[in-house]
Amino acid sequence: MAISWGVKSFPFTICVHILGVVAAVLVLVWNIHFRGGLAWTSPNKDLIFNVHPVLIVVGFILVSSEAILVYKSIPRSKEYKKLVHLSLQGVALVVAIVAILAAFKFHNENGIDNLYSLHSWLGLTTVILFALQWLIGFVAFWYPGAVENTRSALKPWHIFFGLLTYGLTIATAKLGIQEKLTFLQINSVIGRYSLEALIANSLGLTLVLLGAFVFLAAVVSSR
Amino acid sequence: MAISWGVKSFPFTICVHILGVVAAVLVLVWNIHFRGGLAWTSPNKDLIFNVHPVLIVVGFILVSSEAILVYKSIPRSKEYKKLVHLSLQGVALVVAIVAILAAFKFHNENGIDNLYSLHSWLGLTTVILFALQWLIGFVAFWYPGAVENTRSALKPWHIFFGLLTYGLTIATAKLGIQEKLTFLQINSVIGRYSLEALIANSLGLTLVLLGAFVFLAAVVSSR
Repeated sequence: MAISWGVKSFPFTICVHILGVVAAVLVLVWNIHFRGGLAWTSPNKDLIFNVHPVLIVVGFILVSSEAILVYKSIPRSKEYKKLVHLSLQGVALVVAIVAILAAFKFHNENGIDNLYSLHSWLGLTTVILFALQWLIGFVAFWYPGAVENTRSALKPWHIFFGLLTYGLTIATAKLGIQEKLTFLQINSVIGRYSLEALIANSLGLTLVLLGAFVFLAAVVSSR
Repeated sequence: MAISWGVKSFPFTICVHILGVVAAVLVLVWNIHFRGGLAWTSPNKDLIFNVHPVLIVVGFILVSSEAILVYKSIPRSKEYKKLVHLSLQGVALVVAIVAILAAFKFHNENGIDNLYSLHSWLGLTTVILFALQWLIGFVAFWYPGAVENTRSALKPWHIFFGLLTYGLTIATAKLGIQEKLTFLQINSVIGRYSLEALIANSLGLTLVLLGAFVFLAAVVSSR
């Protein structure tokens, strides 16, 4: 049965771009204004941690969102879209790995245990899935490229696991926001209804909305 | 373009049933064995809280998962499937509301603030979406039922928002697990790598896997 949605993807891609800017502003305001800024090396170890959420939101989630939308938002040849898609997803993957290294660096320099939280378990699962998905996609659809039959068979699975991994990325980010806020609130560094908590929670909801529009844009037909 | 997945939904529905049992066992062991059990009224307020995760996992997520699968797992008439689907989703909704009341009851009797965490924000958003989705579904597809054109136009949106809400349910549950564990670990009630933490994190990952199989069963064709 052919499904008719009655709408095209264009308005949803616009919503994704706008929500992406909102999410970037929220994560930057949170980590630079409220949490003191970013640094890779610093006696103030918290600044090293702050690199993690900023890179995850701006360099991983937003880049990956746009990479998914390439098939709906750019009126160019299929090969061109593919190249932009795999390049953007490649950038997102590298940024995610650097962001994870920042979290480990913060833990190690502060003597905090690694990989005990659900956030870390799910994050590691997600980035491994993402890397596998990228590798299999590269080999099957770009170079050397599988035969046509294999491509057709793989395509729905590539889309399904891609969207699943993308959903996990957003779910993991929300776990991270909640973890960070709980640490701050339980030590009474910030109030439960403080402006900072509202901003961080709003970032969480913005990412959920962004994800919903990416899914919508991905499933309806282009323009 | 017709998509060929090369598989049918049957094996995925079996995985959902099995993972559902695993998730139920994990949440019960966690809350009864490790957290002391369940009670609606008790001087030990923690027992009131424990009602919340148990009802959410066993009565909301698992029932809702099976409700989604009805269209793939029962070889009966369309009307029959619809009735089972809307009844199960109705049960899930009522259980979710009772589970949320348990969390408020625990907060109020313990003098804890309500609705400050990302878990609570997302949870409230999710249950409101779920209730709207149920109501619109009931009116459009059951009684009085919309005209055929409207039904066809609504159907993809019902499926999309249904799966989105379902994904949010699982994401919210993971936020709850992480919040509870962070509270316990930061007060050193349990260790970061304790058996209890491993069980609760495993519950989180089991719910993610369960969700992935529900999505797969929902998108591929039946049997």
